[in-house]
Amino acid sequence: MHKFLFTAESTFDGVVDRSFTLGDIPGVLWSPESPASGAPLMLMGHGGGLNKRAPGLVARARAMAAEHGFHAAAIDVQGHGDRSRTDRDQRWVDEMLRARAAGESLAPSITAYNGSLADRTVPEWQATIDALQALPEVGTDAPIGYMGMTLATTIGIPLAAADARIRAAIFGGVFVYDALLSAAREVSIPIEFLMPLDDPEIDRASGLEIFDAFGSTEKTLLAFPGSHFRVPQTQLDTSFFVRQFERAGMPLA
Amino acid sequence: MHKFLFTAESTFDGVVDRSFTLGDIPGVLWSPESPASGAPLMLMGHGGGLNKRAPGLVARARAMAAEHGFHAAAIDVQGHGDRSRTDRDQRWVDEMLRARAAGESLAPSITAYNGSLADRTVPEWQATIDALQALPEVGTDAPIGYMGMTLATTIGIPLAAADARIRAAIFGGVFVYDALLSAAREVSIPIEFLMPLDDPEIDRASGLEIFDAFGSTEKTLLAFPGSHFRVPQTQLDTSFFVRQFERAGMPLA
Repeated sequence: MHKFLFTAESTFDGVVDRSFTLGDIPGVLWSPESPASGAPLMLMGHGGGLNKRAPGLVARARAMAAEHGFHAAAIDVQGHGDRSRTDRDQRWVDEMLRARAAGESLAPSITAYNGSLADRTVPEWQATIDALQALPEVGTDAPIGYMGMTLATTIGIPLAAADARIRAAIFGGVFVYDALLSAAREVSIPIEFLMPLDDPEIDRASGLEIFDAFGSTEKTLLAFPGSHFRVPQTQLDTSFFVRQFERAGMPLA
Repeated sequence: MHKFLFTAESTFDGVVDRSFTLGDIPGVLWSPESPASGAPLMLMGHGGGLNKRAPGLVARARAMAAEHGFHAAAIDVQGHGDRSRTDRDQRWVDEMLRARAAGESLAPSITAYNGSLADRTVPEWQATIDALQALPEVGTDAPIGYMGMTLATTIGIPLAAADARIRAAIFGGVFVYDALLSAAREVSIPIEFLMPLDDPEIDRASGLEIFDAFGSTEKTLLAFPGSHFRVPQTQLDTSFFVRQFERAGMPLA
């Protein structure tokens, strides 16, 4: 077992922001000042090249706590944020940047890199869930949701396939490869999938392919003009989680 | 001008339901018992073969009044509900039913029929807006939204293109033809477009084609498994209108 420690705490606008470490995994837990018993826990995945305190992620996490009374947590994926990058990961990144600069497809390098990061991060998220559920203010009754696009979706799909504690998820904007399609077929929870319609690097057909693959009976594709680099705020409908957790009869704030 | 008359009134669960006639157009207006000044007005289009009191339409209209404090109105399209069908319309209907039974494409008959109904119904909706805005409890400051799939979208797209009083709309699940694509290009208000992904009669490509055609800078495609015959309740996100009207700084209940 990794050791769980809170390392810093601050409160602003009614949201408590606590940095933590779980072994060598650095993370953040955002909570309402007075969380309800059994308040849901949102896992907030960060995109490729970003980290647990990316501004968009923090804004959504704080809104989850302030508007819905949820806990929200984020961790740095290996080679992101506070975590050093291995030489092998650096070679994948270099190759991705070279391909993008040359106008070539990112698919070969990004799918290998993201697949490897997913293999490493799924168990880290599961250990993080274990550690957070051991906190008295979270507990094991809290319904758990997951949200995040691009790299966070590459990680979130196999996580949702592997861990029944996750009850609802928002995914989207992802490079599709066979292992990800296989994992999507094993996902049966309600999902929303965000699909940018004019992405220079991810085509519509692959978005429809992975959406079709999800085993979920309740799933919605949200598609919008533009690319995955700028998802309009109006497309991030966090009330999806409120509806899902309410329908499941789970305790809400 | 057609004469506007309320012909019946009842109140149930906090929603006032008033039948009206505007000349030979029969309609319904649902309102909160104590509507706020400037409360928005929702125009609720009915699908082909249905009418102003189709159960799904009524449920959504009542929710608009009860949950959001909006007015909501529906009218019968010619040849639907209380309105007799012309011989020419009956021939189109017969041809549609024959094509469906024979497993042939509905497109030739349905696009001719729907296009003709749209030409006739757009001015009827505009006269209905005029009449409702003349009511003191509605008035001309009320922001107006439109929602409805299939036939209601065939009518709603040219209505939104022609009438700047409509500020936001939910469309979807429609047979696409050239005049409808042209009208969609003239629509610039925020829209949501519902696209059933497994419709036996309307393919995905045509849904993407008309979604791309909309001139709106803010538009979202919501796609989901199944056909246009059964749109899951979770896909009808009426809070879209609340967000749109709030952003426009309009008076809300």
